Amino acid sequence: MTPPHPDPLARARLLTSPSVSPAVVHELERITGRPAGPPDALAPPDRPFVYVGDTLPEELRTPRLLWFHSVNAGTDALLAAGPWPEGALLTRTVGRMGERIAQYTLTWILAECQSVPEHAAQHSRSEWRRLPSELAAGQTAVVHGTGRVGSAVAGLLRACSVRTVGVGRSPRAVPEGFDRVVPAGSEAERAALAEARWVVSTLPLTGATEHFFDDARFSAMRGATFVNVGRGATVDMAALETALHGGSVRRAVLDVLPDEPAGPADRAWRLPRTVITSHSAGITADEDVVSDFESCWQAVAEGRTPALAVDTRRGY
Amino acid sequence: MTPPHPDPLARARLLTSPSVSPAVVHELERITGRPAGPPDALAPPDRPFVYVGDTLPEELRTPRLLWFHSVNAGTDALLAAGPWPEGALLTRTVGRMGERIAQYTLTWILAECQSVPEHAAQHSRSEWRRLPSELAAGQTAVVHGTGRVGSAVAGLLRACSVRTVGVGRSPRAVPEGFDRVVPAGSEAERAALAEARWVVSTLPLTGATEHFFDDARFSAMRGATFVNVGRGATVDMAALETALHGGSVRRAVLDVLPDEPAGPADRAWRLPRTVITSHSAGITADEDVVSDFESCWQAVAEGRTPALAVDTRRGY
Repeated sequence: MTPPHPDPLARARLLTSPSVSPAVVHELERITGRPAGPPDALAPPDRPFVYVGDTLPEELRTPRLLWFHSVNAGTDALLAAGPWPEGALLTRTVGRMGERIAQYTLTWILAECQSVPEHAAQHSRSEWRRLPSELAAGQTAVVHGTGRVGSAVAGLLRACSVRTVGVGRSPRAVPEGFDRVVPAGSEAERAALAEARWVVSTLPLTGATEHFFDDARFSAMRGATFVNVGRGATVDMAALETALHGGSVRRAVLDVLPDEPAGPADRAWRLPRTVITSHSAGITADEDVVSDFESCWQAVAEGRTPALAVDTRRGY
Repeated sequence: MTPPHPDPLARARLLTSPSVSPAVVHELERITGRPAGPPDALAPPDRPFVYVGDTLPEELRTPRLLWFHSVNAGTDALLAAGPWPEGALLTRTVGRMGERIAQYTLTWILAECQSVPEHAAQHSRSEWRRLPSELAAGQTAVVHGTGRVGSAVAGLLRACSVRTVGVGRSPRAVPEGFDRVVPAGSEAERAALAEARWVVSTLPLTGATEHFFDDARFSAMRGATFVNVGRGATVDMAALETALHGGSVRRAVLDVLPDEPAGPADRAWRLPRTVITSHSAGITADEDVVSDFESCWQAVAEGRTPALAVDTRRGY
């Protein structure tokens, strides 16, 4: 969590994942004033290095790693793949992710309110038939996770006159976007789940959130639609299936699954009244990677810990 | 446009269309303190009457009609069906129509940004594939019509950080929801159409708006998606077809058509990249009819012209 020392950083090589586009590599070279490129697989770097990419190959998990900048926002897979090199800084790309995930959430809420798939199906049959709609304004959404993404989701829903209740681990001042916040696991959360038309999870995956959405939470709902834009493994999929069959969950919109990518045989595709969207909600664009790396670089150059640094023990 | 005189109103019968639900009839009786029901087709009313309904049968277009309250917002078909009885007040139901049409518009804009139909199709094939999305925030929407509905549409889009340019007939103070307003037919409108990612029409049908969206307007667009929540006959459908084929219009979302309901043979179903939604955007609910009639009744009882009165010569 402390920035790399200026001396090794000055000598450090800049390495990038093969998945990083040439346009991004070019921008990274401009920002850091040094050449950048993929590591030579046969010869692990002999000098300190900074790495920009999606995954960290085993042979690069060495004390020579000063700093890893993730092109993604989620770093759970990265941290789960092996012990994190002592003292190495980890930063992540958030970009306009909050805005993107907020728009995704609002879209799927409204698509249900306005029967978008049903209208598309009617059109394909050249069928003229008026369909009712439901006004989201005035309904209640419960948003799990009151951090950057949760706040952005709640803020956009509230801008559309949806009432927003946050569920957070540590009750504190009500974060932006929320009408109120209740503590996870409390009677107040239970009451909010019963009242909610929409339950949106933005939870990261940590030891504390695995199977967070279990039988108890799903059966506290009274016909809410469940939207997961956090992490797949925060959901007990068997509990969700039971809830969908029983009706306590009306519909599910799952951007994430415990096993990704989901193969055609994955049971999740067969859940009733569910749509799965292939982890597309918070896609980071090239410009997001560049601008977030640049702000981290600036902080590090000034000896500050970047705002996008990840606490590698807590996992977010 | 003047309210009925208290004397005949006190003696007036209250008649309702057969389409008005028993629950609404009951509420109307409560509000007016008199029995209500459908007219006897064989015997036109011998006393002054107030009529609540969707259409006005020929035999009721008499000087005995004091007041017609439309259960719909659009009154063009009603006025086009024959001369309006001299002196009869016409009021309409708007209800939460502005909110409903605004939500409809936002929904279809976002459904396109997030590829909702494509995700649904992928799901039906159990196919995991990330799809890109487009952020509506920061894009420009041109909204034709700056009245109550246009303002509601613009206001909701602006709440989602979409820039909103109104097109109005009479330039005046910028109405709520709009960043700015340009006059219809001006060079400024042309420039706005060229810049727009979204062009939304809320125009009513009047003599001045028939085929308002013609070759000139569609060819001024540079790949905008066209959303029509106004009236179908404001669009020259042949011009729209040409623009869709040529690409100046990217997609079309048509809630309304010149001929409704559209039969399976209607050419509109075969327009490329178009979805037709069966005039569902601004559905009025029973509670809308009751609450809007009640506010009109109150105004009339106090000798005021209701805010929901229609100028029967201008048509809105």
